Amino acid sequence: MKQKLRMGMVGGGPGSFIGAVHRMAANLDGEIELVCGAFSSNADKSKLTGDSLGLAPERVYGSFEEMINTEKTLPADERMQFVSIVTPNHMHYAPAALALENGFHVVMDKPLVLNMDEAKKLQLLVQDTGLLFCLTHTYTGYPMIKEARQQVLQGKLGTIRKVHVYYPQGWLSDYLEGGDNKQASWRTDPGKSGKAGAMGDIGSHAFNLAEYISGLQVTKLCADINIVVPNRQLDDDGAVLLKFNNGASGLLLATQVAAGEENNVTIQVYGDKGGLEWKQEDCNTLFLKWPDQPAQKLRTGGGYVSSFAQHNTRVPAGHPEGYLEAFANLYRNFALSLQARLAGITPQPEWLDYPGITDGIRGMQFIDTVIESGRSDIKWLPFAP
Amino acid sequence: MKQKLRMGMVGGGPGSFIGAVHRMAANLDGEIELVCGAFSSNADKSKLTGDSLGLAPERVYGSFEEMINTEKTLPADERMQFVSIVTPNHMHYAPAALALENGFHVVMDKPLVLNMDEAKKLQLLVQDTGLLFCLTHTYTGYPMIKEARQQVLQGKLGTIRKVHVYYPQGWLSDYLEGGDNKQASWRTDPGKSGKAGAMGDIGSHAFNLAEYISGLQVTKLCADINIVVPNRQLDDDGAVLLKFNNGASGLLLATQVAAGEENNVTIQVYGDKGGLEWKQEDCNTLFLKWPDQPAQKLRTGGGYVSSFAQHNTRVPAGHPEGYLEAFANLYRNFALSLQARLAGITPQPEWLDYPGITDGIRGMQFIDTVIESGRSDIKWLPFAP
Amino acid sequence: MKQKLRMGMVGGGPGSFIGAVHRMAANLDGEIELVCGAFSSNADKSKLTGDSLGLAPERVYGSFEEMINTEKTLPADERMQFVSIVTPNHMHYAPAALALENGFHVVMDKPLVLNMDEAKKLQLLVQDTGLLFCLTHTYTGYPMIKEARQQVLQGKLGTIRKVHVYYPQGWLSDYLEGGDNKQASWRTDPGKSGKAGAMGDIGSHAFNLAEYISGLQVTKLCADINIVVPNRQLDDDGAVLLKFNNGASGLLLATQVAAGEENNVTIQVYGDKGGLEWKQEDCNTLFLKWPDQPAQKLRTGGGYVSSFAQHNTRVPAGHPEGYLEAFANLYRNFALSLQARLAGITPQPEWLDYPGITDGIRGMQFIDTVIESGRSDIKWLPFAP
Amino acid sequence: MKQKLRMGMVGGGPGSFIGAVHRMAANLDGEIELVCGAFSSNADKSKLTGDSLGLAPERVYGSFEEMINTEKTLPADERMQFVSIVTPNHMHYAPAALALENGFHVVMDKPLVLNMDEAKKLQLLVQDTGLLFCLTHTYTGYPMIKEARQQVLQGKLGTIRKVHVYYPQGWLSDYLEGGDNKQASWRTDPGKSGKAGAMGDIGSHAFNLAEYISGLQVTKLCADINIVVPNRQLDDDGAVLLKFNNGASGLLLATQVAAGEENNVTIQVYGDKGGLEWKQEDCNTLFLKWPDQPAQKLRTGGGYVSSFAQHNTRVPAGHPEGYLEAFANLYRNFALSLQARLAGITPQPEWLDYPGITDGIRGMQFIDTVIESGRSDIKWLPFAP
Repeated sequence: MKQKLRMGMVGGGPGSFIGAVHRMAANLDGEIELVCGAFSSNADKSKLTGDSLGLAPERVYGSFEEMINTEKTLPADERMQFVSIVTPNHMHYAPAALALENGFHVVMDKPLVLNMDEAKKLQLLVQDTGLLFCLTHTYTGYPMIKEARQQVLQGKLGTIRKVHVYYPQGWLSDYLEGGDNKQASWRTDPGKSGKAGAMGDIGSHAFNLAEYISGLQVTKLCADINIVVPNRQLDDDGAVLLKFNNGASGLLLATQVAAGEENNVTIQVYGDKGGLEWKQEDCNTLFLKWPDQPAQKLRTGGGYVSSFAQHNTRVPAGHPEGYLEAFANLYRNFALSLQARLAGITPQPEWLDYPGITDGIRGMQFIDTVIESGRSDIKWLPFAP
Repeated sequence: MKQKLRMGMVGGGPGSFIGAVHRMAANLDGEIELVCGAFSSNADKSKLTGDSLGLAPERVYGSFEEMINTEKTLPADERMQFVSIVTPNHMHYAPAALALENGFHVVMDKPLVLNMDEAKKLQLLVQDTGLLFCLTHTYTGYPMIKEARQQVLQGKLGTIRKVHVYYPQGWLSDYLEGGDNKQASWRTDPGKSGKAGAMGDIGSHAFNLAEYISGLQVTKLCADINIVVPNRQLDDDGAVLLKFNNGASGLLLATQVAAGEENNVTIQVYGDKGGLEWKQEDCNTLFLKWPDQPAQKLRTGGGYVSSFAQHNTRVPAGHPEGYLEAFANLYRNFALSLQARLAGITPQPEWLDYPGITDGIRGMQFIDTVIESGRSDIKWLPFAP
Repeated sequence: MKQKLRMGMVGGGPGSFIGAVHRMAANLDGEIELVCGAFSSNADKSKLTGDSLGLAPERVYGSFEEMINTEKTLPADERMQFVSIVTPNHMHYAPAALALENGFHVVMDKPLVLNMDEAKKLQLLVQDTGLLFCLTHTYTGYPMIKEARQQVLQGKLGTIRKVHVYYPQGWLSDYLEGGDNKQASWRTDPGKSGKAGAMGDIGSHAFNLAEYISGLQVTKLCADINIVVPNRQLDDDGAVLLKFNNGASGLLLATQVAAGEENNVTIQVYGDKGGLEWKQEDCNTLFLKWPDQPAQKLRTGGGYVSSFAQHNTRVPAGHPEGYLEAFANLYRNFALSLQARLAGITPQPEWLDYPGITDGIRGMQFIDTVIESGRSDIKWLPFAP
Repeated sequence: MKQKLRMGMVGGGPGSFIGAVHRMAANLDGEIELVCGAFSSNADKSKLTGDSLGLAPERVYGSFEEMINTEKTLPADERMQFVSIVTPNHMHYAPAALALENGFHVVMDKPLVLNMDEAKKLQLLVQDTGLLFCLTHTYTGYPMIKEARQQVLQGKLGTIRKVHVYYPQGWLSDYLEGGDNKQASWRTDPGKSGKAGAMGDIGSHAFNLAEYISGLQVTKLCADINIVVPNRQLDDDGAVLLKFNNGASGLLLATQVAAGEENNVTIQVYGDKGGLEWKQEDCNTLFLKWPDQPAQKLRTGGGYVSSFAQHNTRVPAGHPEGYLEAFANLYRNFALSLQARLAGITPQPEWLDYPGITDGIRGMQFIDTVIESGRSDIKWLPFAP
């Protein structure tokens, strides 16, 4: 009889957006069971959330330290097996480090941590412990993003020349942090978000997507970083010129003041043989474009897609899968990899295809470089980890 | 501390498509726990499925009779509270009847049952027991379908004049039932599907959607029903002219031989003030069309939508929700209604908005009438329950 | 030095919509020169229009009889060579017949004439005179419609099984003919339109498109024909079940009361190997859909399209062509065919591919049959010319 | 009786793409007659083209000098009234200057001329002569681009914060200039195109569109300019960060190596109240996006659009207009303005709304600045005319 993996959660209490998303993502496939949580640094709020989730009261904790220290004393077949960390950025490092130090695998929301110092320490911990670490760059979980990467890796587009990634949002067009919007407040607060606002929140997703699909690495960049809404403390808008390690050039846009935009992440990649395009608004479609043949419309669930796309698909073509399914794919692949480790079997390549600590380090470097570039009069800054 | 609702499942063993869908839908929100199942009439297969789902072996049963009869002997706070029935149509009535007779609420896949006799008996049972009954017409679970219905109910489109619903699939373009395709085999077998093929499988969805959104009822119809693929035993294609109780006319298309089509259910409703359009391929968008103003593009998660749409939405606008979320909305609303009953509180109208036995009866009547019309030389047949 | 073809026009005076369209279509390629016209049965109005078009006053006539009788007396290298007839339906036959009888080729707006009697007489005249006759079923002029037909003819979709054509408009949702809307007035007037309203005005287009692309012929039909707007004299709405001569079935919708719809003619054809879809709203795209391969997005101007599509294209891919270009293709092909005849050379097949008298006869038969079916209690009426 | 305007053409002989486009654009509305031309610097080729167009042999010239010098000797009611110049860039200035010096109005293809020196001389000539001058930035002719500008001008979007314009093409992905592709050859030849390739050919369109719609002016920029295809002499790709005179920021992409892309110019503008989006691929649609209301889909021909959009529309909503119609709008507005001048009446504002010499100067400055920036290590270069 198969055992579900046991998850503990740090963060995700009242007012959290991403906590509920992580829980739905973990729930979907019935492979993971939430067994404990430190949902808030306020013990009452933590308890409230734990109750609403049907957790046993004794496994709802007032702090992540309490949770980790208590759980590790429980019997091996009862205690949580991994921790999901869904707090604001400034509360990423400490619980992650403590979890790893105590032998718990970690799933963590992006961006990795608050700054590069924390990032490097965390990287060492992950390497030293050999524990599994998943960073939830959601967009890499979409079947058609998997397909896009495979098309590029297989050389279908030829040598890559251009990578465009656009991430427009409009929800911060007004000074929401002046009111009681919890999401706006922490995301625009340098103490909680780190040195970047939009660039950390969504720019890091865009950057990750660009490197993930293209298989390339950014080597230098030139950024225009703006605070558009008066009195805001962190960037809410920016555009970045990119150069990649094969000489390709790119363009990255991340803005939270494109009034009227929702969340329509878009990526375009062009090689010398053809191009591809994906838009989150039509997330189950991947267009391949050819100079001398009709464009092809690939679809989630199509019988012709790669094993990576198939593996990350749950229902037949034409039954739309979405954001939660993409998110659930991260959890599912993490879970499959962890189950494989527990069972001592070799994981399939498709299972291992989730973002990890290296993506996190790249993302932190992106944030550092792009913010420095935004302040610099020098055109190109090297992207040097 | 909140208790999850305890679900048992009938059907959904190896080779099932819809069983896994029901389980994911029930999992998503963490409100329901699968505690037992009779996944196959073959006890070994049932056990296999139960094991893979992590169920306790003693609660994996070899038949629905065994499950129901055993579960009812378990302590009240342990035994299943409702049964989810995901078998082929010919195996709907018996487990549903037995469950109701033994005090279990029921969620059932569509169409309701094998024929009208069973339908009427089941209706009586539901009425007599007063237990909750949910029929999983998935499409009614989409937030933008909820919104469409509310727009019509609120009179935004004026008096409804036209209702078009198109349900094109292509997967039965070949004689798949000649091979080992389990889905194709039972869906084209009169003994398992009933008197209709495509009209029962997807036509009944289309019909339900038409009545649900328009708030109208079909009063007569004229159908062209075809068996396109040679040797097939049931209809795989059809088109139906409809008349509604307010005089509106309509058009319903359901085909499984539109080669190359996936599952792009589309509905258009027109009143004397305006029209609406929804397509499953772009399921988070609802277009409202006006004679003298720009069309409006309503979106899942938009701040302007009705409470019914909001209630059935999980993530902010621009984070695509899909088929599984729509399906999960049926389970969630059923669960909320059941929790309300258990808690003795009044359910909100949004919770009660899931398809039930009446929809099931209408659907069976649709199947009967449409098949009879397909064989008739008389143009219009009354739709008389 | 190449000579432009000399065109005379009947109709197209003040208040006309389609007259200006014909003139722009004839102008576009610089192959045709408007040299005379009888733009209105009111001589003053005719003169007004002629002046605004820069015509020589002596070639602006007060009636089509005067125009034809005068023009034929002019020197051969001066007189008009063909007549374009853009009047309401009841004024089609007389000028066409007189033109043909006097040796002038004819371009005529659809539907052909007022009734089947006129249609058959006109057909005889065309056959007897051997003059060129073009009926402006605009939609057949789109490059991607040409491509669609070629794909079907070449067998790419296999044996055709299904043909859907939808022509929704909303402009007659109100009783416009009660006011001073000239277009609404004649189109809803049996004396000017004939026995059909929407079915003649746009249903005939839809019908023509279905037969043109599929290469099939309708053999029987079953129609639901409605007058939706109170006090209207002719149908403004209808849906038709179709059977074709190879056993394929079809669906035709034509409505002018779909409030909020513009003119988004849509056609879908499915064979046993694949399907196609075209929508006027995205008129430069043709989707080919395959059961086991990605759908293909063919585009006007793509290097891979048939000679028929290429021939009817003016600018490179990505420079949108539209309705006027499609209309101009009818004139251009008519003109090329006429120039070929005048030059004694063999026309290319692409030039001859414009709708003619046979399409007109089929269209009149469609109108007769569909209106009769709308009134009949018999389900299927034969489509018997 | 209205007189058509008489046009002469310079360029547009065999192998020309844009010459035929200009002629169709000028033909469409029947307001302009092509009466003479110097279609090629090769007299035989010029004659060939003139013959094929049905021009009188005596008005087909071997050079623009001959044409201008001869035409001015013709009677006033016979000679050409304006010259359309459709040659490669290096042949823009001389015919334009000679035409203006001899009293002929000018329509000219973009970009203005070969370099800024020529540009300034031409500007003086236009100012001194007071003759009409139209620069064919086609995209400004689309009805929905007119509407976009009006929406911004009327303040509907609030204060503009962001302007994105993307112009992706793929046709120069290969080294076409190594073969006999005439279009590729001159466009990649510095002697014929000037200092810029893609930036001059399409970047200048994108730039014009950005300033036209936003009503803003670029004040500084930072460009990444690339030659992607080996051995090419001019840029075929670039991206530009922009700053506008109100503090708004922007992004401009122009590439001809995005393999598989056609010509899908896209513009997005965001203010503090809302945003807009237009794509040439769906050129009759303008989306207005709002933070708290459904997005609106404005359509060419909609009864609700501005007088500027209406004036530039020929057919009812739903009858797609395209590139040639947009192009024809430039000619039509130029012609209406010229007719008004000839008639001594005041032109309507809608007629005067076509690009002129000032747009040309801005475009040349764009080319200069963007190419300089591409070579510079300094991040921001001022855009200083």
